[in-house]
Amino acid sequence: MIKTNLTETARAAGRAARKLALADGLARNLALKHLAGALRQSQSLILEANSRDQAAARSGGLADHLVDRLSLNEAGLKELILAVEKVMSLPDPLGEISDRKTLDSGLEVSRLRIPLGLIAFICEARPGALVEAGALTLKSGNGLMVKCGKEMAQTAAALKNAFGRALTASGFDQGAVTVLPTLDRDELRELLTLSEIIDLVIPRGGEGLIRFVSENSRIPVLKHFKGVCHLYVDEGADLSQALAILINGKTQRPSTCNSLEALLVHRTEAPAFLALAGPELAARGVVIKADPAARAFLPQAELAEAEDWGREFLDLTLAARIVPDFEAALAHIAAYGSNHTEVIATRDPGRADRFLRSVEAGCVMVNASSRLNDGGCLGLGAEIGISTTRLHAYGPMGLRELTTTRFIVTGHGHLR
Amino acid sequence: MIKTNLTETARAAGRAARKLALADGLARNLALKHLAGALRQSQSLILEANSRDQAAARSGGLADHLVDRLSLNEAGLKELILAVEKVMSLPDPLGEISDRKTLDSGLEVSRLRIPLGLIAFICEARPGALVEAGALTLKSGNGLMVKCGKEMAQTAAALKNAFGRALTASGFDQGAVTVLPTLDRDELRELLTLSEIIDLVIPRGGEGLIRFVSENSRIPVLKHFKGVCHLYVDEGADLSQALAILINGKTQRPSTCNSLEALLVHRTEAPAFLALAGPELAARGVVIKADPAARAFLPQAELAEAEDWGREFLDLTLAARIVPDFEAALAHIAAYGSNHTEVIATRDPGRADRFLRSVEAGCVMVNASSRLNDGGCLGLGAEIGISTTRLHAYGPMGLRELTTTRFIVTGHGHLR
Repeated sequence: MIKTNLTETARAAGRAARKLALADGLARNLALKHLAGALRQSQSLILEANSRDQAAARSGGLADHLVDRLSLNEAGLKELILAVEKVMSLPDPLGEISDRKTLDSGLEVSRLRIPLGLIAFICEARPGALVEAGALTLKSGNGLMVKCGKEMAQTAAALKNAFGRALTASGFDQGAVTVLPTLDRDELRELLTLSEIIDLVIPRGGEGLIRFVSENSRIPVLKHFKGVCHLYVDEGADLSQALAILINGKTQRPSTCNSLEALLVHRTEAPAFLALAGPELAARGVVIKADPAARAFLPQAELAEAEDWGREFLDLTLAARIVPDFEAALAHIAAYGSNHTEVIATRDPGRADRFLRSVEAGCVMVNASSRLNDGGCLGLGAEIGISTTRLHAYGPMGLRELTTTRFIVTGHGHLR
Repeated sequence: MIKTNLTETARAAGRAARKLALADGLARNLALKHLAGALRQSQSLILEANSRDQAAARSGGLADHLVDRLSLNEAGLKELILAVEKVMSLPDPLGEISDRKTLDSGLEVSRLRIPLGLIAFICEARPGALVEAGALTLKSGNGLMVKCGKEMAQTAAALKNAFGRALTASGFDQGAVTVLPTLDRDELRELLTLSEIIDLVIPRGGEGLIRFVSENSRIPVLKHFKGVCHLYVDEGADLSQALAILINGKTQRPSTCNSLEALLVHRTEAPAFLALAGPELAARGVVIKADPAARAFLPQAELAEAEDWGREFLDLTLAARIVPDFEAALAHIAAYGSNHTEVIATRDPGRADRFLRSVEAGCVMVNASSRLNDGGCLGLGAEIGISTTRLHAYGPMGLRELTTTRFIVTGHGHLR
């Protein structure tokens, strides 16, 4: 795709986005209803296309976990259709009027909630991410340009067709959800310069992709690089509850960003807690990398090396360390955390409060599993990603984070 | 300043910012109180330093309007001290808990309002901007690194001293407000790569400075490039009210971004309105650049050229055009507006509502002067700038826009 075409495609997407922004909630919901219908109707086409992508990926030697993420079966597609219908059922995020006030002068000032505009979503080969991003942006009145990994080219074409039919049936332009053809790195770089047309870029994938997007984008980027999540077991904590939180956080789905990577234990609890945790973790295949003090209670553990602190293992590996006190736990997290999810297991309300207020992360938790840091689990209904930077959104991003507000002001001839 | 030092300075500012973030509102207000006191105490030192800067700028041939902006007299300094005290009196923007809900599972989820972190403020030689930015960031618990134009080097040193004394007297680190020495473009470029330490960059100044910062920053940037504000006089508008809004918007302070640059008049009102407006504008020295249709009623007007639409004149020049209907006015603004401030003069509630909802700008107004788009005038108490992009903040940015929220979650052993 040559630059002119990419710019033209983006402009058309921008025009389609403006129509969507001005449509009412019923019209946007109608598009989602047609989308669910089109996905249902095209089920066999989509699954066949995905089988071809899978076969090509396997014969091309794509790593197993990437083929997994690329794969879509009947049950997976059904779940996606349900997700579209779930998004449809959420309250309309647009049009809300807030902060309404009448100034002493009589000037009426308030804020109106509006969409962000046109969003570029850069993901790897994950069909579910494409469908969810499309549903969330339609619901929130934003235009979307999606660039997926080339390994899902056939699936993307089938999904594009479903989006196209749904948009046409509901009276919107097909450009409102533009599924781009495969772009090479130079073309992607071009896309990332279109700051006059595209309002936001959301990359989702490995750290390499996200760094590439961040470093080459002239458009604001919402992203998280990685999740290095800690559990701190405080003095006096409920140890069996803490153990359940540890096991869930580490083993329920270790490849995800909200899984635990490191355990910090207060020294008074360390003998009892580590004696409990060691065998339970070992029984689930977890490899522990411990500091020398913790190793005294974890005979099976390897010795942690400097680079194991702050490392995102993304597998069944856990770094473990004994800390002398609460302050040392805070200092460790401040040094090695990634602004993603941090957890304290404690019975002390004062330390719980201090942890919530002072630990730097988009989501800070007391006595709950880090795995619950997810838009769905936290009651947002759906999420388009998790932000680890503080501009615009911090933590899981739901529909509200796909909107902003403008000031609307009504006077009666007011002057300055 | 070599790179290591700049990085070290930023790291120290980041540490100071974290202390500020964790301090309570009383402690942050105490710093503001000491700041007002230190500015009062140092009044003659600051004014003398500023006189030296002015003299050097004049002998160096700096343009008059830039010398104006650099200049600080006794009355101006008093106003700044009052502004610091005003910021002190505003409600604490931090610590607010919002969106509190208990999910069906019993998990308690809410959002805690926190500072953004460390902000780099890049401004030209404007002493007031430095003091206001410092007051707003202290109030909102953010660290600040300020880089001002070299023309105010002496004033900056005197102000830095006042900030330093206020911070020390209130128990904070001086790094919380770091006034940087003059940086050349390479050093500024270095500063803009420190995305691991600095959370946000706010440039304030001419379009050239803002473009340089936007194009070279790896850190998120909040900015506005320019303000091309339109007044549309609708069919049936109160013409004498519309005239007052036009005169105020164009002439009250034409060098500012929220001044009017263009007038659009509905064809049915054009004969009467332009006959009224022409002499009033001429009497105030306004040069009109009109399209041929408008020129028929504005004998003194020049003929507008293509590049006059969407142009930020920043002086007593006004582009004027007759539009056939409301839709044409919307289309003109969509094509030439700058997402800053747009105004309609109308008596029709339906068109007022459509204008507010559909015109793309951070601030959209009905029957009020564009000059009122200012944090102070809109009841925000104070502002650090006006954003014309939709990420994080759109329109005037007050204290709340210097904060964000994190999710705080409390469970009782909740797992996924």
